[in-house]
Amino acid sequence: MKISTDYIKTITQTGKEFDSRSHELLIKAGFIDPVASGLYSYLPPGLAVLNKIEDIVRTHMNSLGALEVSLPSLHPKDHWLQTKRWDSFDVLFKVQSRHDKEYGLGPSHEEIVTPLAAKYIQTHKDLPLGLYQIGTKFRDEARAKSGILRGREFRMKDLYSFHADNLDFEEYYKKVIVAYQKIFTELGFEDVKMTEASGGDFTKKFSHEFNVLTEAGEVDLIYCAACDFAQNAEVLTTKLTKCPKCGEEIKEGRAIEIGNIFDLGTRFSDDFKVKFKDEQGRPVSPHMGCYGIGTSRLLGAIVEVNNDKNGIIWPTSVAPFHAHLVNLVRDDSKFADLIYRTLQSEGISVLYDDRSEVSAGEKLVVSDLIGVPIRLLVSDRTGDQVEWKLRIDEKTRMFSVPEVVKHLKDAYVI
Amino acid sequence: MKISTDYIKTITQTGKEFDSRSHELLIKAGFIDPVASGLYSYLPPGLAVLNKIEDIVRTHMNSLGALEVSLPSLHPKDHWLQTKRWDSFDVLFKVQSRHDKEYGLGPSHEEIVTPLAAKYIQTHKDLPLGLYQIGTKFRDEARAKSGILRGREFRMKDLYSFHADNLDFEEYYKKVIVAYQKIFTELGFEDVKMTEASGGDFTKKFSHEFNVLTEAGEVDLIYCAACDFAQNAEVLTTKLTKCPKCGEEIKEGRAIEIGNIFDLGTRFSDDFKVKFKDEQGRPVSPHMGCYGIGTSRLLGAIVEVNNDKNGIIWPTSVAPFHAHLVNLVRDDSKFADLIYRTLQSEGISVLYDDRSEVSAGEKLVVSDLIGVPIRLLVSDRTGDQVEWKLRIDEKTRMFSVPEVVKHLKDAYVI
Repeated sequence: MKISTDYIKTITQTGKEFDSRSHELLIKAGFIDPVASGLYSYLPPGLAVLNKIEDIVRTHMNSLGALEVSLPSLHPKDHWLQTKRWDSFDVLFKVQSRHDKEYGLGPSHEEIVTPLAAKYIQTHKDLPLGLYQIGTKFRDEARAKSGILRGREFRMKDLYSFHADNLDFEEYYKKVIVAYQKIFTELGFEDVKMTEASGGDFTKKFSHEFNVLTEAGEVDLIYCAACDFAQNAEVLTTKLTKCPKCGEEIKEGRAIEIGNIFDLGTRFSDDFKVKFKDEQGRPVSPHMGCYGIGTSRLLGAIVEVNNDKNGIIWPTSVAPFHAHLVNLVRDDSKFADLIYRTLQSEGISVLYDDRSEVSAGEKLVVSDLIGVPIRLLVSDRTGDQVEWKLRIDEKTRMFSVPEVVKHLKDAYVI
Repeated sequence: MKISTDYIKTITQTGKEFDSRSHELLIKAGFIDPVASGLYSYLPPGLAVLNKIEDIVRTHMNSLGALEVSLPSLHPKDHWLQTKRWDSFDVLFKVQSRHDKEYGLGPSHEEIVTPLAAKYIQTHKDLPLGLYQIGTKFRDEARAKSGILRGREFRMKDLYSFHADNLDFEEYYKKVIVAYQKIFTELGFEDVKMTEASGGDFTKKFSHEFNVLTEAGEVDLIYCAACDFAQNAEVLTTKLTKCPKCGEEIKEGRAIEIGNIFDLGTRFSDDFKVKFKDEQGRPVSPHMGCYGIGTSRLLGAIVEVNNDKNGIIWPTSVAPFHAHLVNLVRDDSKFADLIYRTLQSEGISVLYDDRSEVSAGEKLVVSDLIGVPIRLLVSDRTGDQVEWKLRIDEKTRMFSVPEVVKHLKDAYVI
């Protein structure tokens, strides 16, 4: 992608105040565009990162044996009346058709996935069943904030599982926890805190939340400095001074919730009268679980924990481009053009700053702002070599073009 | 994918009447599930085909140099007031927030993409600019019909282009026509009719529609038996007896519109006060075009023209699986399991009917219904060979496993 023709421009000055670092950086670096409070457009590099995040999530859902589906966002009102959530689910957007119909705008999909599963679950042999989708959710939030960290329309992976009994559910639930931990590790998060929480609107049963420590978050977290103990401060009834698990020091901090898992029991199975025949042929309600990951929120959370004063620092697993090529040779782009074509032909994605009217200083500022993990630079002083620099540190090294190709392929396992 | 555990079941009897062949086949074969009138869930094989269709569309949009973005579905009311379409766009769903806000639910995205482009178009050097997305659209249709051929929520590719002048727009418009023709050819359509039509709600300028001949369609088409002349019957004021282009016989038929392209002129640029500086530094409104392809409708249209009395016949370019493997060996799945694993390890996607409780006859019925282009069968009579049969004809051939791998790779260019 060439900045001169293809890249939607970065904005270094906006004159605006932002309520979070990720909000500011994603807008300035040209990854998202604000449409209205809680509503954003994804621009090409933002969409590229979002797709990479969702591909990682998809891979791990498929490894669980879950099947990908796509459920509609317009939900017939009668489905929500059946679960008695039409009036009680406070963030449900309601849509009135001209044709005397009313719809809810999917904030979650139990009302659609449960009757779908009902059509296909007949006997215990059809269980467990895991259905997931990666798509758009709508929530009529009173206060949208922090850019894509809390929007009114956002992207989410939601998995729903159906089980013959509680034991089978619990085994599956544990497998999902492991899958989530793998996803978060792959996305570059070093320290995701799992907390036990109340199920909120969804369920009275137990649930777990996955939280990333960041000041931009909305959750007050109590956690152990030494072990994996963590708890939502709201849930705690007493003030902890020592970790109840290991006795070490307790810390406090703000965090953002990036995933959650719920035990739904048979609440929705009962509402939609889903029954399967057990081994004795008796009708039984399947036990359900539901498991969310906010994929657009993850995009924000990644930036929240991976940035410095100059801009974003993308983890390699979700980088919008493999390399950012900067041409500083005066009035000559032949060598940079050659590098660009060579890398592309090797399957390496490159953001190429080929602009001639822009100063060297501004090109470097833009490169740090966008935050591609590896910067390649050619100038009047680099000769037939290329200057290689990681976004994460200041060291530079000189490589030949074949060496650049080799090192990039190693860095990204291409 | 194994039918016993992974495949959401086919339905051979529904007891229902369907208003189109594609509607019936996609439901019976387990590709889509009806939620309510005009609303469908995509099940795993349906989603697989939809993804393949959208990948083909994406490739050709990228070849045009257009940039992929993702725009929100919730549109602030003031954007639609600015274009005076809030009250006049009859299929616009309206959403009332509890927080005193009102939104339109995107039926088309001129109201979002035009102000977005305004932020990035400064001079004639920023033009032409092409922005596209592949996503969900919502339309409050009075009559949803024919399954996914006319839904209230559906998938669409919409491209918007911005130009320095009319001449540049016309050149781009012609390139989009070529891209569309390539897309339709790649999807296996042999005869897509391009017609000139009025712009409807969108524009008073000229526009073109792309139509596939099928009885399930809603467009009455007049077309030439010999050349590419075609016209929407509604637009014609006189009855044609001979083709006005070549003098040959004129035919009539029903068709479904799968794509359209519009000259928007400067209508939306003017509404949102988008200006760029021309070479003399004067402010000018960019000329806009808009280009749609209904990707979920394409899924329906493909089935509409590719089926026989037994089921769907998928074109290889969008087949949900490369091969459908049927095991008819009595009480033994060792050989079929081996073939399944071998094909998977070669990157070939296989739907494997591994069910033991189902009759041979039913397995063959299901295979024809689902319509994977190539059926592989092993039985007590095939020995260490595999019976290879195309869905399109009755001929069978016997191959060794390595030959099966080779022929599959040739058929799908893997």
